[in-house]
Amino acid sequence: MQNPALDMHALIARLFPICRSITGDGVRETLRILREHIPIEVREVPTGTEVFDWTVPKEWNVSDAWIKDAKGRKLIDFRKLNLHVVNYSSAIHQRMRLDELRRHLFTDPERPTVVPYRTTYYEESWGFCLSEEQFAQFEDAQEYEVLIDSSLQEGYLTYGECFLPGEEENEVLVSCHICHPSLANDNLSGVAVAAAWARELAGRSHRYSYRFLFIPGTIGAITWLARNEAVLPRIQHGVVLTCLGDASDLTYKRSRRGDAVIDRAFCHVLKHSGQPHSIIDFFPYGYDERQYCSAGINLPVGCLMRGRHGEFPEYHTSADNLNFVRPDALADSLAKCLAVVEVLEGNRVYLNRKPKGEARLGKRGLRSDLALLWVLNLSDGDHSLLDIAERAGLPFATIKEAAGALSATDLLDPL
Amino acid sequence: MQNPALDMHALIARLFPICRSITGDGVRETLRILREHIPIEVREVPTGTEVFDWTVPKEWNVSDAWIKDAKGRKLIDFRKLNLHVVNYSSAIHQRMRLDELRRHLFTDPERPTVVPYRTTYYEESWGFCLSEEQFAQFEDAQEYEVLIDSSLQEGYLTYGECFLPGEEENEVLVSCHICHPSLANDNLSGVAVAAAWARELAGRSHRYSYRFLFIPGTIGAITWLARNEAVLPRIQHGVVLTCLGDASDLTYKRSRRGDAVIDRAFCHVLKHSGQPHSIIDFFPYGYDERQYCSAGINLPVGCLMRGRHGEFPEYHTSADNLNFVRPDALADSLAKCLAVVEVLEGNRVYLNRKPKGEARLGKRGLRSDLALLWVLNLSDGDHSLLDIAERAGLPFATIKEAAGALSATDLLDPL
Amino acid sequence: MQNPALDMHALIARLFPICRSITGDGVRETLRILREHIPIEVREVPTGTEVFDWTVPKEWNVSDAWIKDAKGRKLIDFRKLNLHVVNYSSAIHQRMRLDELRRHLFTDPERPTVVPYRTTYYEESWGFCLSEEQFAQFEDAQEYEVLIDSSLQEGYLTYGECFLPGEEENEVLVSCHICHPSLANDNLSGVAVAAAWARELAGRSHRYSYRFLFIPGTIGAITWLARNEAVLPRIQHGVVLTCLGDASDLTYKRSRRGDAVIDRAFCHVLKHSGQPHSIIDFFPYGYDERQYCSAGINLPVGCLMRGRHGEFPEYHTSADNLNFVRPDALADSLAKCLAVVEVLEGNRVYLNRKPKGEARLGKRGLRSDLALLWVLNLSDGDHSLLDIAERAGLPFATIKEAAGALSATDLLDPL
Repeated sequence: MQNPALDMHALIARLFPICRSITGDGVRETLRILREHIPIEVREVPTGTEVFDWTVPKEWNVSDAWIKDAKGRKLIDFRKLNLHVVNYSSAIHQRMRLDELRRHLFTDPERPTVVPYRTTYYEESWGFCLSEEQFAQFEDAQEYEVLIDSSLQEGYLTYGECFLPGEEENEVLVSCHICHPSLANDNLSGVAVAAAWARELAGRSHRYSYRFLFIPGTIGAITWLARNEAVLPRIQHGVVLTCLGDASDLTYKRSRRGDAVIDRAFCHVLKHSGQPHSIIDFFPYGYDERQYCSAGINLPVGCLMRGRHGEFPEYHTSADNLNFVRPDALADSLAKCLAVVEVLEGNRVYLNRKPKGEARLGKRGLRSDLALLWVLNLSDGDHSLLDIAERAGLPFATIKEAAGALSATDLLDPL
Repeated sequence: MQNPALDMHALIARLFPICRSITGDGVRETLRILREHIPIEVREVPTGTEVFDWTVPKEWNVSDAWIKDAKGRKLIDFRKLNLHVVNYSSAIHQRMRLDELRRHLFTDPERPTVVPYRTTYYEESWGFCLSEEQFAQFEDAQEYEVLIDSSLQEGYLTYGECFLPGEEENEVLVSCHICHPSLANDNLSGVAVAAAWARELAGRSHRYSYRFLFIPGTIGAITWLARNEAVLPRIQHGVVLTCLGDASDLTYKRSRRGDAVIDRAFCHVLKHSGQPHSIIDFFPYGYDERQYCSAGINLPVGCLMRGRHGEFPEYHTSADNLNFVRPDALADSLAKCLAVVEVLEGNRVYLNRKPKGEARLGKRGLRSDLALLWVLNLSDGDHSLLDIAERAGLPFATIKEAAGALSATDLLDPL
Repeated sequence: MQNPALDMHALIARLFPICRSITGDGVRETLRILREHIPIEVREVPTGTEVFDWTVPKEWNVSDAWIKDAKGRKLIDFRKLNLHVVNYSSAIHQRMRLDELRRHLFTDPERPTVVPYRTTYYEESWGFCLSEEQFAQFEDAQEYEVLIDSSLQEGYLTYGECFLPGEEENEVLVSCHICHPSLANDNLSGVAVAAAWARELAGRSHRYSYRFLFIPGTIGAITWLARNEAVLPRIQHGVVLTCLGDASDLTYKRSRRGDAVIDRAFCHVLKHSGQPHSIIDFFPYGYDERQYCSAGINLPVGCLMRGRHGEFPEYHTSADNLNFVRPDALADSLAKCLAVVEVLEGNRVYLNRKPKGEARLGKRGLRSDLALLWVLNLSDGDHSLLDIAERAGLPFATIKEAAGALSATDLLDPL
C-alpha cells in the first residue's frame, strides 16, 4: 500500500459489486479478497448450530434475478445492481400480473430515484427493490416474468478473524459487518478501515493482542460470542467500526459501561483532534455494539462512525455508493483509530521514584515543562498516563513522551 | 364520587367552615366527615403525653367570639369567619377601651382587605384578627365589649390514620395537616387530595401498604412519630401534601436524602408530564417534612405543593378561601400522585434470562422497539425499572409495559 | 501595629531594599526585621546537606556590583537597584569590550523601561540585568570595567519558622518565600500578610497549632520538608501566600487533593465575600505548593494570590515595586486568611441530642431560624459545620453562631 486513503477506497471499489448476505459465497469472496491484504482465518459454522438464543440459518446464494415485461425486456436486473433482489429471497420463476407482483416490489416513496435495501432473513419470502422511477414503467394490465435464481439450504455461516498476537494475552477487539451487498459506507467503509488498521499493526510489535472480526451483523456477532466465551475476559477494549467513509463529522458512541478506557481514549483523541465531533451515550440499538454490550456480555466496546445509523438520507439505499465514500474521510477515520491505539498501548502506570518534593530535572539533562511536572506529580501508582493527560488537559502523546524521557532517568519506572 | 376534581372541591367546601386547631372538636368533626369517604381510625392522645421533646398540649375549643361597640353592634364576629379569633386564645369577657384592646388586635397592614391567620399555641394569650378596613371602624375613645368563649383544658390531641394494607408490609406514607381553620389551600387542598388518593387505592389491590395521616401540623407529626417508631423501618417512600389547589405550577421538594426513590419518582413524573414545574432541594423549614426528615428520623419523605409556604400573597389570610382553590389544579395534583404510585408499585428489578447477545424477539411474537431493548439490556439484576426509564429517557409506563410484555415470555423474570 | 494595612505596606517598604537570595545575609537581615514583629526561630542548614533529591547550595553574598564606562562613570549600579546583578552571579572584576560583555547583559525587549529579574542558582555564571533604555547607552567600540564583588562559599541555607502552639497538635501550615530581592508583590506581599496573620494569632488562643514558614522558594520548601517529615502527618490544612498586594482579584488555587477542607474553606470565604474572585484547579507549577503537593508529600496545601505567576506585566521586573502593592489589597488578602481561620477553627462536628422530630426551641429561649434548623437537622454526626454551611448556602459564621447558641442548651454537643 502506498496511499492508505486511496488504497482503502480502492478496496471498497473492488468489494462493492459482490452480493453479500449474512451467509453465502459473497461473504467467502469478500474474505478471500481481504486475505490478500491481511492474515484472516475463515470460520465456517454449520447451519442449525445453536448460538445463545439464535440458530445459524440456512445458507443463501443467488446467481441471477430479473423482471421482464411482456416483450421480454428486463426492467429490473440483479446483475446491474444486487440491491434489486430482497436479500434472502426464496427462488421463484413465474409469470404474474402487476397486481400480484406489486406486493413483492419495494420502493422508497420519499426518494424516487434510489433503490432501497431490504432483507428477509428470518421469514421466507421474496421480493424486488426498485426506484419509484423504475416502478413508474410498470403497467397495470401487463404480465411480467419474474426470476430469482436463489438457493436456501443447509450450509454455513462464514466469518473472518484476523488475530495479531501481542506481548500480552489481553486483547483489543475491532468488529465490522460484512453482510451488506452493494452498500459502500454501510459497511464496506468499516471493512476497509478495519483492514487498513490490521495491516498497519501487522507490521509492528504491540503490547495488546488485536482481534479483527469481519462478520455478518447480529447473527455473526452472536455466533462469535457464543463460540468464544473463554476469550471474553481477555478483551480489555473494543470498538465497532461502521459508516466511516462519508463526509459527516466523527461520532463515538460510548460502551454500555460509559466510562471504560476505550471510551475515554476515543473521547481524548477526538477532543484533542480539534475537529468537530460528537460523543453520544450508549443505547441498545445500532450495530453490533448491541451484542457486545448486551446484559450478559457487557464488554467495553464502543462504536465509531460518521453518518449515524438511519440518520443520513443515503442510508440503506443505492445512493450509498462509491461516490458517497471519500478517501479523506476514510483516512481520517483510520487516523483516529491509530491514535487510540497509541493511547491504549501507551497507557501504563508509572511510579515516581523521587516523589518527595520535586526532582531536580536539570541535573538529569531534562528541561522542566508542564508535561514532565504532571507525570512526576501524578505518578503515585494511582494514575495511568491517560488519567494524567485528562487531568493536565494535555494530549496523550505529550504525556507519554514526558514519561518516556523520565523513564530514561532514575526518576520514573513502570509499575 | 363521579368527578374527582369537583368532588375534591366539594369536600373542601364542606370542611371549610369548621374551626380547626391542633386539638379540639374541629379536628374531630373534620375526621368524621372524612370517614364518610375513606376508612379512618381516629386516635386520641391525652394532654400531657410526652412525645419526643414535646408534650401534648391542653385541648382547645371555642364556641363563640366577638367584639361589640358601645352600641352593642358586633364589629367582629367569629361566627362569620373563624380566622377572627387568634387560634388557642384563652377565654375572656370584658369591657375595655381601644388603647387596651389594641394590643390584642392583629391586621395585615400590607393587605388592608384581608384578615390574617394567627395562633398562640404555646403561650397563653388571646386576640382577634381583622382587616385593616375593619380596624378603621374602631374609635379611640370608645369602650368595647370583648368575648371569647373558649376552653383550654385536659383533653386529647386527635388525629386520623387511614391504613390500606398491601401485599407487602413495606409502606408508603402520605401526610397532610388538618389543624388550619377556614383556609382552603393551606391545607384543605392537601386533605382533599390525600382523601381522594386513599379512596382511589382503597378500591384496588396494591403492592405497598399505604398509610394516610390526617394530623395537626408539627405536634401531630411528632406525636405520630413518637408513637410509631416501630413502624418507621417499614416506610420506604413518603410525601407531605400541601397547598395543592391554587393555580401555581407544581413544586416537589426533595427529601433530606435528596435522591431517594420517592424523589426520583416525583422528578420522573413531573419531567415526563411536559408541564412547567420546579424541583427544589430539601431545607429544614416548611411543613411536616421537617419532622419526617429530622436528623434522627430521616425518612425518605418529600413534599408536593403548588403555592409555596409563605410565598403566595393569599398565604395565611382570609383570601385563601374557596375561590382560591380550583378543581382542575386539585385534579392535576392527584393525577401526579397516582402517577407516582404507578412508578413505586411497578418499580421492580427483573432479570434477563437470555442475557448473552440480544434475544430473538420475533420468534416470541414481540416487535423490537427501544423500550424492549433497554429493559433487556439493563435487566442484569442491578437496575430497577425506574433506573432503566431514567437512563433510557423514556416514560416509566413505557418501560413497565415493555417489562410486562417480556415477562410474558421466557426472557424476563422478576428478581 | 495600629493599621494593619499601612503596617503591612510599611513592612514591605522596609524589607524592599534588601538584596535577598536563596541563601545569604539578605535572608538573615529579613528574618531579623520580621522577628521585631513575630517570634521566629531561624534555622541554618549547612551547604552540602542532602534534602530529598537536592543538595543545599553554597551561600551567596554580594556587596557591590557595577559597570563603568571608559570615563569611569557607573552606567549600572547594584547599590541603586539590586535587580541589576543576576542573582547568584560569581565574582568578576575585569575590563572588556561590549561584544564580550553583551552576553552577560539581560534586558526585556518587550518592556524597554524595566529591569528584569534573573537568577543563576545552579549554574555558575555572572550577569547584569538592565533596561533596554540603559542598554542603549552602551557603545559598541567602548571598553567597560565590570565588577561583581560576590562570594559563593560553604555556608548555610537560612529560613525562619514561626510556630504558634494551639490546643491541638494538629497544624495549619502557612508558607511564603523570602528569596526575592527588591520585588514587592512577589513576594514581600506574601511575607507581610503572613507576618500580620501570625501577629494576629499570636495574641489569642486557637485550636490548631500554626506554623508560618519564611523560606527560600523551592530549595527552602524542600529543605523544610526533608527535615520535618515527622511533622507532616499533623498538617491538616495549609496555604502558600504569594503576590497578595496588587490590584487584581483574589485567586485561590486548589490543593492537589482538590476538595480538601482548606480548599472548601477558601472557596466558601471567597464565595460569601461577594467579591469577584477565581478558583482554579491545582497544576504542578507556580510556587511552593509544587513541593507541598508533590506526589510523595500530597499535603492539603493550596495557594492564595492576586496577580498570578507570570501573568501580570510587572512580574519579575523592577516594576514590581512599592507603588505596585496597595495597602487595601494587602488588608483584603489578610482578611480572607483570617476568615478562613474562623472556618478552620470553628469547623467541628456536633451531635443533636434530641434528633427525633424538631426540638422545641421556644422553651429554651431560642427563636427558630433557618441556621438553627439546619444545624439541628444535619448534626447527625456525619456533617461538620462547614458541610452544613455549604448545604444551607449560609455563611459559616451564621452556622457557627447557631451551633454556639444550641450548644448552650441541652440540644447540641460537640462530637
